[in-house]
Amino acid sequence: MNPDIFLPPQVAWATGALAGGPLIRKTTRLAELPDVFTDGEAWKRGNPQQGVYDVDVLGSPVGEGALFVGVTHLYAGNVGDEFFMTRGHFHARREQGEVYFGLRGVGLLLLQTEAGDARLEQVTAGSVHIIPPFTAHRLINTGTETLSALAVWPSVAGHDYAALAEGFSLRVFASGQGFEVRHG
Amino acid sequence: MNPDIFLPPQVAWATGALAGGPLIRKTTRLAELPDVFTDGEAWKRGNPQQGVYDVDVLGSPVGEGALFVGVTHLYAGNVGDEFFMTRGHFHARREQGEVYFGLRGVGLLLLQTEAGDARLEQVTAGSVHIIPPFTAHRLINTGTETLSALAVWPSVAGHDYAALAEGFSLRVFASGQGFEVRHG
Repeated sequence: MNPDIFLPPQVAWATGALAGGPLIRKTTRLAELPDVFTDGEAWKRGNPQQGVYDVDVLGSPVGEGALFVGVTHLYAGNVGDEFFMTRGHFHARREQGEVYFGLRGVGLLLLQTEAGDARLEQVTAGSVHIIPPFTAHRLINTGTETLSALAVWPSVAGHDYAALAEGFSLRVFASGQGFEVRHG
Repeated sequence: MNPDIFLPPQVAWATGALAGGPLIRKTTRLAELPDVFTDGEAWKRGNPQQGVYDVDVLGSPVGEGALFVGVTHLYAGNVGDEFFMTRGHFHARREQGEVYFGLRGVGLLLLQTEAGDARLEQVTAGSVHIIPPFTAHRLINTGTETLSALAVWPSVAGHDYAALAEGFSLRVFASGQGFEVRHG
């Protein structure tokens, strides 16, 4: 007689939908992102209830060495000419890294060291982003559809938004059919 | 003028093929798996050069908090009636977890605690397996095609095979069109 076979949660690669497990969703709306976008007047004109991104996280064990799995859905949109993006953060535990996998849409992953050195990685379906320790990270949606990315990160990592109160050193704006990167 | 946009490695969800980055492949052959399968005579009759599984790992930073990304390709086959499987291991750093994502094929993930409690999770395309700290893990291919699974694990985790020298407490054998689980 076979013992019970556990049916684990599932991720749909094409959409990033998570199913079959306990899920916690956090929605971040435009109202919660003051001082994130360059054009403050355009931000004030926006709908404060507009969802900018959702993060779905599977419920799972926590503690030193335990890993979390989640999906970020970053919607297509602009504030002025600047693309929708996540707030971005360092981990509170600075030495803890993270891995992102692009699932759908197109965008950029902005990485920045504590010394302020920034770089951009292209996010597409199947892209693999190994974010090293001591590195802040932000997603930017440069396309016209939702940018969805799967993430794995240590449960003890935590978030430190305050360390980036002055923003990342690069910003990305719509330009013609593409984008333009400017120093912030 | 836009700065350089880094093109990261890519994973093909349908096959688990990794490309576009430094890759290290480790092949494990039947000859390297003595005392892993129940039927030692069948193992001796097998081709010692037969590849049982390949593990491809992306080159990436190491150290406390850094994460590795790799793909295991476990081939379809049997030793006697027992399905091909990975050796399986605890992490040397017992508290370090791991995450597997099923990509193709069908199989089982065998998990076992230090107390010897074992359980099986069904691996299919898109399955998400959050392996908690202090938990040994082994993949078993119960199907007729290659079982490929994407993994993310802490670079400091290490491997401890010796702790499982007596094997896992469950074993999985072909039975008709399906499988049968036996206590080892």
